[in-house]
Amino acid sequence: MADLPKRVKIVEVGPRDGLQNEPEPIPTNIKLSFIDALAHSGLQHIEATAFVHPKAIPQLADAIDVAKNLPPHPCVEYSALVPNQRGLDRALESGIRRIAVFTAASDEFAKKNINMSVEESLAVFQPVIASAITGGMTVRGYVSTSFVCPYAGEISKERVLDVAKRLIDMGCDEVAISDTIGAAAPSDIDRTVGHVLQFVPAAQIALHLHDTYGTALANVLAGLQLGISNFDSSAGGLGGCPYAKGAAGNLATEDLVYFLDRMGIESGVRLNDVAMASMLISDQLKRELPSKQLKRLNAARRANGNQQNGESPNSN
Amino acid sequence: MADLPKRVKIVEVGPRDGLQNEPEPIPTNIKLSFIDALAHSGLQHIEATAFVHPKAIPQLADAIDVAKNLPPHPCVEYSALVPNQRGLDRALESGIRRIAVFTAASDEFAKKNINMSVEESLAVFQPVIASAITGGMTVRGYVSTSFVCPYAGEISKERVLDVAKRLIDMGCDEVAISDTIGAAAPSDIDRTVGHVLQFVPAAQIALHLHDTYGTALANVLAGLQLGISNFDSSAGGLGGCPYAKGAAGNLATEDLVYFLDRMGIESGVRLNDVAMASMLISDQLKRELPSKQLKRLNAARRANGNQQNGESPNSN
Repeated sequence: MADLPKRVKIVEVGPRDGLQNEPEPIPTNIKLSFIDALAHSGLQHIEATAFVHPKAIPQLADAIDVAKNLPPHPCVEYSALVPNQRGLDRALESGIRRIAVFTAASDEFAKKNINMSVEESLAVFQPVIASAITGGMTVRGYVSTSFVCPYAGEISKERVLDVAKRLIDMGCDEVAISDTIGAAAPSDIDRTVGHVLQFVPAAQIALHLHDTYGTALANVLAGLQLGISNFDSSAGGLGGCPYAKGAAGNLATEDLVYFLDRMGIESGVRLNDVAMASMLISDQLKRELPSKQLKRLNAARRANGNQQNGESPNSN
Repeated sequence: MADLPKRVKIVEVGPRDGLQNEPEPIPTNIKLSFIDALAHSGLQHIEATAFVHPKAIPQLADAIDVAKNLPPHPCVEYSALVPNQRGLDRALESGIRRIAVFTAASDEFAKKNINMSVEESLAVFQPVIASAITGGMTVRGYVSTSFVCPYAGEISKERVLDVAKRLIDMGCDEVAISDTIGAAAPSDIDRTVGHVLQFVPAAQIALHLHDTYGTALANVLAGLQLGISNFDSSAGGLGGCPYAKGAAGNLATEDLVYFLDRMGIESGVRLNDVAMASMLISDQLKRELPSKQLKRLNAARRANGNQQNGESPNSN
């Protein structure tokens, strides 16, 4: 494991991918406190909101308010999702400097998720990306359902490469290969991302993993072994999987940071400080979040510092 | 990932390592139904109980009753923990054919867990293992806290090798290198198990992983990459971590089987049938178990087959 990247970039997607899945909208000031706490934990890339139609995602209807009032941290780059020209106009107005466009590797998923085929979405994005770049922004592209689609099943590596390459060709500086339903195993990462890497440099590829099946950190390892050093995660594991209520969502930032710390890979993020941010939003949502680290920290807190409580003999 | 083992042996430890951590004893007939369901799922190695002092672990006070009434499955090998000569006598009486002895790589842990130093425990085991083998049994050895000890901290690879090798030399046909508190990352597996492999063949090493920090499947991947093909797991993720109440316990058998299935690695175990066994014991315990697969299946059951329920747009 000596050849793994020594430093990893984490893109925190909790405020956007996480909170958009919550049944109730969160007050804007709570979102901003959450984002501020995330920035204080050392996270330098935070996807803060989405300029989508408020009817489609009422949870993010305050996108402009959030974007205009983002806590100033000189080392933090904020970004926001933008689905079309109208969204870009709002993003430009808000002053945000980085946007993300999102399509999929599966037409069936794209149609249900963004109401366009993949081809149609790329046609919409081309002028949006061009205008954004002209406006001085940088652009990320998401390729959802890059491994398994809940409607179309298995996705071919050629298809993922095709969509990823076209996003890069349009001006995206990074594509997030996304395991939307969290079904991938390391062999999937190896096959599909390995294929994309033949044509797109590792520095332009991020892995966006969900932990529905518990495979997310194994998939991070597979990514690291391919030389990938950009990973998305969500504080507390916020996010849920919209296709299986009650199942776990995004890879939790705490779990990723613990893993990287223990592997001796730098992320610049302080585990306990991310956990504090997650507890803030967990208190607001009045529920425990899925992050294993957070569960462990909460358990330790409940045990009141008595780590030997509940010990039973003959443990292995 | 082409060089990974094509077939893996799973040792199911739920009935022992799992149920010993439950606050209330489970009725013997429920344990036997659980074990029967596990055997029906294709699991061929089941650690059924422990011949320990009933005062130490009242949950397993029915060890002889369990062992004498194990459901007959011609392809299933049952085993039981044995801490000393008295335990071996009971095991021999019960008719069980495979036992496991358990020590640790950390003296501090061994003293708290089995009330002996590692050296003392090995001295106790030597005649027990010899008698067991004379009696026609086979013997497994556990090395608890092989990576991190909750009392002593980091454990050296040399220490793990020393204990593992002495167990093998005494007649154990397999040593279970155990991440008792689930703190290891793949770099730990690589370093410590890689070191043990210089002196002990892969076929004699099993990995016993806990998922406290969400790293268990990543650690399985690291093990597979070293050529390890024996993994312990617990149906539903039964087990808990006795050192952090509320934290997740053993690697869940369902999560391991999903991972292996998806990786194209055979285990002979049917995922849905293990989940059925877990649901049986989950109903008895009146709580949801930590297995991610089980949560997903329960969620799907709750959604009543409507997989599109709760869908939200713009998911990646």
